Amino acid sequence: MTAVLQFDVRKNRCPRVCDSGRLVCYAPVFRWLLFPQDVQMQPVLDFLNARQQTALDELCQFLRIPSISADSAYKPQMNECAEWVRASMTAAGLTATIYPTDGHPIVYGERLRDPSLPTVLVYGHYDVQPPDPLNLWTSPAFEPQVREGKLFARGATDDKGQLFTHLKSIEAWVKVNGELPVNVKVLIEGEEECGGVHLDHFLETHRDLLKADVAVVSDTSQYGDGIPAITCGLRGIVAAEVRLKGPSKDLHSGIYGGSIANPVNALTRMCGTLVGADGRVQIPGFYDDVDDLTPAERAQYAKLPFTEASFLKEVGSSATFGEAGWSTLERRTARPTCDINGIFGGYTGEGPKTIIPSKATAKITCRLVPRMNPHKVLDQLEAYLKSQCPAGIEFEFKRFHGCEAFVFDPTSDWLVAAGRAVETAFGQPPVLVREGGSIPVVLSLKQILGLNTLLLGWGRNTDNLHSPDEHIHLQDFHRGTLASACLWKELATVPRG
Amino acid sequence: MTAVLQFDVRKNRCPRVCDSGRLVCYAPVFRWLLFPQDVQMQPVLDFLNARQQTALDELCQFLRIPSISADSAYKPQMNECAEWVRASMTAAGLTATIYPTDGHPIVYGERLRDPSLPTVLVYGHYDVQPPDPLNLWTSPAFEPQVREGKLFARGATDDKGQLFTHLKSIEAWVKVNGELPVNVKVLIEGEEECGGVHLDHFLETHRDLLKADVAVVSDTSQYGDGIPAITCGLRGIVAAEVRLKGPSKDLHSGIYGGSIANPVNALTRMCGTLVGADGRVQIPGFYDDVDDLTPAERAQYAKLPFTEASFLKEVGSSATFGEAGWSTLERRTARPTCDINGIFGGYTGEGPKTIIPSKATAKITCRLVPRMNPHKVLDQLEAYLKSQCPAGIEFEFKRFHGCEAFVFDPTSDWLVAAGRAVETAFGQPPVLVREGGSIPVVLSLKQILGLNTLLLGWGRNTDNLHSPDEHIHLQDFHRGTLASACLWKELATVPRG
Repeated sequence: MTAVLQFDVRKNRCPRVCDSGRLVCYAPVFRWLLFPQDVQMQPVLDFLNARQQTALDELCQFLRIPSISADSAYKPQMNECAEWVRASMTAAGLTATIYPTDGHPIVYGERLRDPSLPTVLVYGHYDVQPPDPLNLWTSPAFEPQVREGKLFARGATDDKGQLFTHLKSIEAWVKVNGELPVNVKVLIEGEEECGGVHLDHFLETHRDLLKADVAVVSDTSQYGDGIPAITCGLRGIVAAEVRLKGPSKDLHSGIYGGSIANPVNALTRMCGTLVGADGRVQIPGFYDDVDDLTPAERAQYAKLPFTEASFLKEVGSSATFGEAGWSTLERRTARPTCDINGIFGGYTGEGPKTIIPSKATAKITCRLVPRMNPHKVLDQLEAYLKSQCPAGIEFEFKRFHGCEAFVFDPTSDWLVAAGRAVETAFGQPPVLVREGGSIPVVLSLKQILGLNTLLLGWGRNTDNLHSPDEHIHLQDFHRGTLASACLWKELATVPRG
Repeated sequence: MTAVLQFDVRKNRCPRVCDSGRLVCYAPVFRWLLFPQDVQMQPVLDFLNARQQTALDELCQFLRIPSISADSAYKPQMNECAEWVRASMTAAGLTATIYPTDGHPIVYGERLRDPSLPTVLVYGHYDVQPPDPLNLWTSPAFEPQVREGKLFARGATDDKGQLFTHLKSIEAWVKVNGELPVNVKVLIEGEEECGGVHLDHFLETHRDLLKADVAVVSDTSQYGDGIPAITCGLRGIVAAEVRLKGPSKDLHSGIYGGSIANPVNALTRMCGTLVGADGRVQIPGFYDDVDDLTPAERAQYAKLPFTEASFLKEVGSSATFGEAGWSTLERRTARPTCDINGIFGGYTGEGPKTIIPSKATAKITCRLVPRMNPHKVLDQLEAYLKSQCPAGIEFEFKRFHGCEAFVFDPTSDWLVAAGRAVETAFGQPPVLVREGGSIPVVLSLKQILGLNTLLLGWGRNTDNLHSPDEHIHLQDFHRGTLASACLWKELATVPRG
């Protein structure tokens, strides 16, 4: 066994790529040698192991295209990038098409083998964040460079590097076995980083085309270095603004103080009780529909490595604070919140000014957990605030947007199958985590296409997403590709529901 | 009687001045004719009645000097104005001197008759507010014009017109009787409208010169049209700023929400309970030293004409609000307050932004009533806010300034005497009122010289103080002069000590 491993490692080692000296793909080789029923799998992995440099070279081509969706000056490069994706899909064995939109094009490819097999819809985005500030990049953002086992470039991890693993694994399956064990549909958009609105329209108008059993998105991260993760929950959100209007103009606080309601006093009064001293949100009914974490999930949370000290250093704070009875990790990912994001009213210059302000405004967001209804939460929030509005103050409540939380049942066959694929490639089972934020496309896939999404992140939180020196670890890129290759096999075993 | 009155009226009528047709000085003439013991008084009033046009012409000279203290370009005019005041004092029979300061000059004049008589210190200011916006003036700010019984010019009521009444009444006494019934000292400064600091220094360094029994300031207003008033109370004030600092930078409210304290949430929580839903300030100990209005004062308040509807129209609000158990007038003048004058933190632009802000700031002032100690109130405020500061938030409390409330015992002989003088000139007894704001000079006179101030306002709230088309009613200017003339006589009767 050892000999085989060593041979395999030597054979696959690529000094230029893996110059960190870290070895890749021990586990898969080990596993597929032990389990002869996986005869189709091993050659695919061999193929991928042997072609790491090629994959890397191709990824570098992809990364060299400055597909900055937010900047209209890069429209030609966006089109060039979409074309590159289409060609890459074709090379992987997919039937690929570019769908123009009123914004940036969507690239869609598919390889449908057998309607009786599961169909997987892969989502990714080929657009990237603007690279500014340019002077903080060690090497230019669109000139990929490998340093210390990492590939540096804008989009290396978000999302070109991660989505490309799926194209490479599909290609390997097709080239080695002539087919995939599942039907695959791949949807790569170009407006994720610029808040584009055309994807939802495309989903709505191509429901049949995109029909599938499950979705796969690789746009999240591992939990930490060497701790692969599947994100099985995302919080939802509602956002609103409350505007109070008192006297028609700022008044002298000496002449009028005590006679009429002060809108800033009133606003602090109504907002100040949104969260209690115990960290619990005090809006009546707020917790009515909250799905608490199960004991199994909490046990999983408790096992995750987390040190308060390094967390506090990360946020630059001296203490954690939040709802009693829940750990910091649980609170930031699986408990609902109510945060005032901004507040303003009256005099904001230097020194004092003796006025009763005419107006005051606060911006509020609540993070939602599964089963909480955004409309209901906004209703509760509005009613609670309004109930505390004193006489003489005009109350206005503006609703911005809202989306539900997302959760993938941790016991689902799809998730268990994906876990096996990740375990195979990463050498250990993934932890199941939830994220505190929301990912709009996951909601769209759920709401428009009815699909649950497997959030399989190969990269790391520390990969400088959206920042200078964005990178992906070569090791992560390669084992992500292997995990993707295993994923098709594992998902093929899931009974369709 | 009627004949005498008519005769007197005819004699005193001055069509150019009193073009509104309203008649002045019925009451004084009536009174002094009835009471022969006031033989010294009637000739003074006759003198003033006969010389209304002269007084008006002189006031117009005074008003033509653009003594804008805030604008250094008007330094020559400030000096010219100080010289004008000095000359006017001399003409009135005072020994007058100009005291240069590091800012604008102070003019001081005195006429000391007999150390056994009461000594009255009159304060006024010869500087005026800038006249901007110029285009809103019907006639130029420094070209006095009479229209409909009112004299329009910057400074007409604040304070040239009001202070000049005292110089004219002194002149009348001296010219008619050769002496005044009291010792008078007159202090006219030039930095009231620009927040100057030199008056206090002058008071501190001229305590002997300014020694007196009582001070008189005519820089307030009547309660309303035809309702003369003596202001016998002013609220004090403390001002502070509370600054909270949470994480070292704004954080993503999805990724971090629930894990650490949000400074805006914390600030609204601590500020939101400063004033309760019942309008009472909830800072522990806040009311400990509050001197409640006496039943007599409340009875007086209850008699003052006040209509909620017109008050609400004035402030542009739909309802009054404040401490239960006290009327609106009482609350705005004789009850303590706690107002947030400004608040800011986090995102203040358009739409939502999903952050946990790093910082939040609020500016707070409390209005104080008699017996409340500014330092104690600031201590209470700081302790109360700090006690609610959650873990992970840095608390900073910045104190700006503070001054005590001022109150003149309504039963004092000085006040009763002044009331008689006002009643004589205005034809009805003045109402005793308190003002909600503070007048710094009143505090300085009290703290530095130990003097209580008789706040005798001849003008009206509606005279456009600090605004375009500032004016004084000719009627008010004249009866103010008569009231001042009576004042010397009445104050002479007050036992010293």
